[in-house]
Amino acid sequence: MAEIEHAAPRPLTNGRTRIDFQTEPARYRHWKLTIDGNVATLTMDVDEKGALFEGYDLKLNSYDLGVDIELADALERLRFEHPQVGAVVLRSAKPRVFCAGANIRMLASSSHAHKVNFCKFTNETRNGIEDLSEHSGLKSICAINGTAAGGGYELALATDCIMLVDDGSAAVSLPELPLLAVLPGTGGLTRVSDKRKVRRDHADVFCTTEEGVKGKRAVEWRLVDDVVPGSKFEETVAARAKEFAAKSRRGATAKGITLTPLTRKFEADSVEYAAVSVEFQRPERIATIMLRGPTAPPPAAADAMVALGSEFWPLKLARELDDAILNIRLNELDVAAIVFKSAGDPAQVLAYDRFLDANKDHWLAREIRLLWKRVLKRVDLTSRSLVTLIEPGSCFAGTLAELPFASDRAYMLIGLRAGDNKPPATIALTDVNFGAYPMSTGITRLACRFLADPAELDRAKAERGKMLDAETAQKLGLVTFALDDIDWDDEVRMFLEERASFSPDSLTGLEANLRFAGPETMESKIFARLTAWQNWIFQRPNAIGEEGALKRYGTGQKPVFDTRRV
Amino acid sequence: MAEIEHAAPRPLTNGRTRIDFQTEPARYRHWKLTIDGNVATLTMDVDEKGALFEGYDLKLNSYDLGVDIELADALERLRFEHPQVGAVVLRSAKPRVFCAGANIRMLASSSHAHKVNFCKFTNETRNGIEDLSEHSGLKSICAINGTAAGGGYELALATDCIMLVDDGSAAVSLPELPLLAVLPGTGGLTRVSDKRKVRRDHADVFCTTEEGVKGKRAVEWRLVDDVVPGSKFEETVAARAKEFAAKSRRGATAKGITLTPLTRKFEADSVEYAAVSVEFQRPERIATIMLRGPTAPPPAAADAMVALGSEFWPLKLARELDDAILNIRLNELDVAAIVFKSAGDPAQVLAYDRFLDANKDHWLAREIRLLWKRVLKRVDLTSRSLVTLIEPGSCFAGTLAELPFASDRAYMLIGLRAGDNKPPATIALTDVNFGAYPMSTGITRLACRFLADPAELDRAKAERGKMLDAETAQKLGLVTFALDDIDWDDEVRMFLEERASFSPDSLTGLEANLRFAGPETMESKIFARLTAWQNWIFQRPNAIGEEGALKRYGTGQKPVFDTRRV
Repeated sequence: MAEIEHAAPRPLTNGRTRIDFQTEPARYRHWKLTIDGNVATLTMDVDEKGALFEGYDLKLNSYDLGVDIELADALERLRFEHPQVGAVVLRSAKPRVFCAGANIRMLASSSHAHKVNFCKFTNETRNGIEDLSEHSGLKSICAINGTAAGGGYELALATDCIMLVDDGSAAVSLPELPLLAVLPGTGGLTRVSDKRKVRRDHADVFCTTEEGVKGKRAVEWRLVDDVVPGSKFEETVAARAKEFAAKSRRGATAKGITLTPLTRKFEADSVEYAAVSVEFQRPERIATIMLRGPTAPPPAAADAMVALGSEFWPLKLARELDDAILNIRLNELDVAAIVFKSAGDPAQVLAYDRFLDANKDHWLAREIRLLWKRVLKRVDLTSRSLVTLIEPGSCFAGTLAELPFASDRAYMLIGLRAGDNKPPATIALTDVNFGAYPMSTGITRLACRFLADPAELDRAKAERGKMLDAETAQKLGLVTFALDDIDWDDEVRMFLEERASFSPDSLTGLEANLRFAGPETMESKIFARLTAWQNWIFQRPNAIGEEGALKRYGTGQKPVFDTRRV
Repeated sequence: MAEIEHAAPRPLTNGRTRIDFQTEPARYRHWKLTIDGNVATLTMDVDEKGALFEGYDLKLNSYDLGVDIELADALERLRFEHPQVGAVVLRSAKPRVFCAGANIRMLASSSHAHKVNFCKFTNETRNGIEDLSEHSGLKSICAINGTAAGGGYELALATDCIMLVDDGSAAVSLPELPLLAVLPGTGGLTRVSDKRKVRRDHADVFCTTEEGVKGKRAVEWRLVDDVVPGSKFEETVAARAKEFAAKSRRGATAKGITLTPLTRKFEADSVEYAAVSVEFQRPERIATIMLRGPTAPPPAAADAMVALGSEFWPLKLARELDDAILNIRLNELDVAAIVFKSAGDPAQVLAYDRFLDANKDHWLAREIRLLWKRVLKRVDLTSRSLVTLIEPGSCFAGTLAELPFASDRAYMLIGLRAGDNKPPATIALTDVNFGAYPMSTGITRLACRFLADPAELDRAKAERGKMLDAETAQKLGLVTFALDDIDWDDEVRMFLEERASFSPDSLTGLEANLRFAGPETMESKIFARLTAWQNWIFQRPNAIGEEGALKRYGTGQKPVFDTRRV
């Protein structure tokens, strides 16, 4: 185990040194995004030779993180570049195969950290498909022309409507347990039980039947919505897509913006974006993410926002923060703590929040808010210690104030700093802190923070719009510690040193529990119940040992199991 | 890791060959149960030399499973033998120490399976304390006279009121993360966040501070209810206990029954109880639990039930089933599947359910129902494949019908068996199947089963009281497969063989997900989010490797961590 854990990471293909989350349709190798009026089609046609890492081919539309990065990008394009689209069909270009799921050789040869982060990202992508449907009105259909196995069926589960061809062999299946001794961990089990609400004994049969379920039984057991004879499949899918698009509340005439490539510069110990800087203090295992406030006031009207497109500050900042977080998650495994800082005029940040509020029925304003919601959820789910340092000259106001609330701790400096003339640190709340950005648990970060006493939430709410100084913020329970300049450096340094000294695994477990007080939703169950059990299995010799099922898959040798139940 | 995993289990003390869950107050080595009017005191005074396994001493009121088995027994005694008691005080007989938590050397030297099952049982015991308060009206107070560390504080968290002496040194703490690189996994993190609703950043500070929190801050952060000066501690605790007892709805004049020792006979491949038989088919890795229905009708009145005491059939059966399940969990790790069977007259089982309904305000009837609720939850949480075989002559009616609903699958035989004159299999529902026995998620097994369509639940409800044959039961969705005599043996055998062929770990993960569709509660979060993450950590070299924190604790050597975050 230790051996597997410390194995040199499998090299990336094409001489790449890090996983890049930025792409664009012209560069896709695995997906094709086509638009026909108000219906989009996302065609999966995985390039066998287009794997992210060396050593495996992506046969039968199996996928790795590289494939999913393209899917995630395509979904963002649908949101921002094609607001007229009301329905999307996910389908395959391969004959008789929709998708074979996550590539098994990739899984078998990945480090534990990569497996976990791969699953997390793919989960976030699939949650994004559901968010698109629920909050943007873009309905999705999965047209299954053959086998949809494992992650292939899990992808289908994220759509609104699963249509399966009825040709005597096409089937949906979750063969992870019988074949690989792992779980359908990309939401599969949870969506079967909690979204499709498959009866638990049927689910038990389904998840232990390697070949899956097809035809009428697939409908009866609620595994798919329709089975359609092959001769009528295309026309039925097309009709359904038109019907969904016609009912969509997305604007049929809206013109999209272009998501231009991010401005980025990677150096040895930093990444520089337009509105975000990331700095790595590698010996201390710290990544500092500096967020810069707007340099100009918001435009007067929505048209000007559209004209600014991806240069519009809230959109630019969200995209850059998202990329910065993903880069740390997947490429910077040794970072123990992420420190959020900001610089700018908090009044300007609030002005942008007001602008987005005033235009909240505009499709672009809505998509920007939804993007922030997803980015902030990504922060919540990032398994690094999160701390916000609220210092003079910072702008943790409104939307940006969610970062201290998403952090495990927030430190705020009282008054001025010796020899510095930046204005004293403030924090400011607006309406967005009380509803726009629910966590995966369905409640806001402030509601979660003040679960014990809703009166504290009301007290904070009453302070909306005010610039709150450190002592007031502490009194309101908005920050963990308010410290003056004399104590600041030592306290912060000691905290960060301590954090780096703890077992990374126990911090992952601690934070996964303490960050999510209160209710659970299907989405949060995926990251709690399902993911945590899957990660446990990903550590067990029965899956990943030399004689385990994941290692032995495809070798012709049967796995050997320790039969003791835990 | 494999090495640790396969290490010979640490031997039990005193030549014991299995862990026994049966005890009684006269045999306690670690707890003292005293009753003073309507107030009980449970005094923890752990015998250092009374460990369950060889190789460690139980210093400073640290505990192992043996200590917790006594606590669980004492709580049952309070329920059944002392119904007049309205409040219980948990306290320590050691100076300046309440409880140091789970014994670290025990944890460090235990097999993974034992650690997991130890935590599960202690969690169930603590949930039982809360159930006692909520459903029996027995309020609990934890009187902390010194340090309550880790599992010691977690035990306190299960009570209604935590009183901490204010002597400048007494403190509550969860030092698992900084000291041992594991989680406070006996409900600690979840109760801090979801029961005490400690603010998440405070919880972060608390759980990373080895020495814990004391005095005023402990109250301000909601970690304890009161801090009381040493000079007033005893009288304040006593007054609070009296106040709680006075407000309790438990009957001040009720006289208890005696929980007599179970009738049990262990053989090499069986355990024989009065109303339960367990048979092990070791090559096939199957344990069959046969439940026998009542041999006489229920008594005419509640007094006669009290007179029967622990011989009263529903009570006897529940206690025996509980013991049988625990024995399999802890002593029979190689069992892949538990097969539930029953024999008896279903009409008689329904008669007992009607009797308990008719007397539902009687304290003993209520306690028996609550015991069944807990035993059935124990079944839900047992990580073995569960299957009920509903055969001719069986009595899966009312309360006993919960077993097929708790099972991963239920097979029901259609009609008669060749050469057998037992009456055809039936299943029968009563009111109890629609409310009396919620799962840890707060909903009934049938509500969970029919989440997709409440109409199916109504349809089942309409059939209450009827003896449903196999085909009807299948039509109603109550069983997985109805099979005739020709197919039965092969189908059942193939299923059980298949089950034994799968990876035990992946089945544990699968069942932990599929059994619990729908809502989560604090209780279910403990077994999902918290337990699953803890089990993951219990597999990680940073905790259990030769250089890990759990292994190195007390050696003077610092742990060495793989610093990569997952």
